[in-house]
Amino acid sequence: MSNYVKIPHLIEEKSFEIITEELGKKVFPEEIGKIVKRVIHTTADFEYADITIISPEAIESAKKAIKAGANIITDTNMSRSGINKKRLAEYGGEVYCYIADEDVAKAAKEKGTTRAMAAMDKAIEGENNKIFVIGNAPTALFKLKEFIEKGKVKPALVVGVPVGFVGAAESKEEFEKLNVPYIITRGRKGGSTVAAAIINAILYML
Amino acid sequence: MSNYVKIPHLIEEKSFEIITEELGKKVFPEEIGKIVKRVIHTTADFEYADITIISPEAIESAKKAIKAGANIITDTNMSRSGINKKRLAEYGGEVYCYIADEDVAKAAKEKGTTRAMAAMDKAIEGENNKIFVIGNAPTALFKLKEFIEKGKVKPALVVGVPVGFVGAAESKEEFEKLNVPYIITRGRKGGSTVAAAIINAILYML
Repeated sequence: MSNYVKIPHLIEEKSFEIITEELGKKVFPEEIGKIVKRVIHTTADFEYADITIISPEAIESAKKAIKAGANIITDTNMSRSGINKKRLAEYGGEVYCYIADEDVAKAAKEKGTTRAMAAMDKAIEGENNKIFVIGNAPTALFKLKEFIEKGKVKPALVVGVPVGFVGAAESKEEFEKLNVPYIITRGRKGGSTVAAAIINAILYML
Repeated sequence: MSNYVKIPHLIEEKSFEIITEELGKKVFPEEIGKIVKRVIHTTADFEYADITIISPEAIESAKKAIKAGANIITDTNMSRSGINKKRLAEYGGEVYCYIADEDVAKAAKEKGTTRAMAAMDKAIEGENNKIFVIGNAPTALFKLKEFIEKGKVKPALVVGVPVGFVGAAESKEEFEKLNVPYIITRGRKGGSTVAAAIINAILYML
């Protein structure tokens, strides 16, 4: 057997120590730090220390909603997979992703839009769907913004971290202007693993 | 309605155009370029153009195996979610991830190791399990290396892209010395989305 660290919690502890050390003078308020470091842990990309933007009320609002049993909606099954669903279930919440649903595929085809947008149409119907986690599709985030502006949904948290080259940065910029609790990553970077890491960081605070 | 691109295939086409343009003088052989660009598409991180290392026989070996119905083993359900399973199924293959299996959790607890390692023990038993995709756990990659060195498994492709600060870089370095078709990302970066993107890029070549 080779000589490598095999004890799960030691691996994670050591990782967070290294991240804290390498962040150096970049020190964050405790809970913000927990989110930023978990994102860096997931990506090994320290740029997230500069581009992760958390609105002042976001963490408290999310914690309160989770404790009250809020469901989480994700735009991809990858993000859904990555979220600690057991931990969420302790408070009564579930994670839903509608992207692969047959009715969603059909609606998208009929309207000539993305499935991500059609999935968002379905998501805002759920009464207890309070936390929206968009790690992939800018179109889902644009759609959600429209719903918020029209007063059709009032999220307890929007995690808006789509990744990419067409619309991703723009879709996130828009959220910084909205009066809604949000966590975004400025610019092109983000993704499903980033999205899941943010939610897990909040779950582990509870 | 806001004015944003909503047509799925146009979004992807445009993204790849931007990536090719920004890569500038970095021009890759066609199939290698398809993998590198899909990874950048997934992460918005151009560093992957420098750290993605593909062994000479890797792409051909993987294509041949997939066409012959090989199964793919992933270390996380996130990677499993991200792989285009429909496309793989056209050739008869399936994607398996054993990390959440009860017998795997039990074995890991008994041995005091990671579930990722116990899942690898299970994975090498499957006769048709030919492609190994490790996007998260260095311990899974170390374990796989041991099995290869002992002649217990002969993969058609190892995608070794664990992310992180403890063991990730080292686990990948080891693979560059092995005589096995591999695709790795040097250093700390990688992840489940990167792993899935690499496999999808190969699937879309077929």
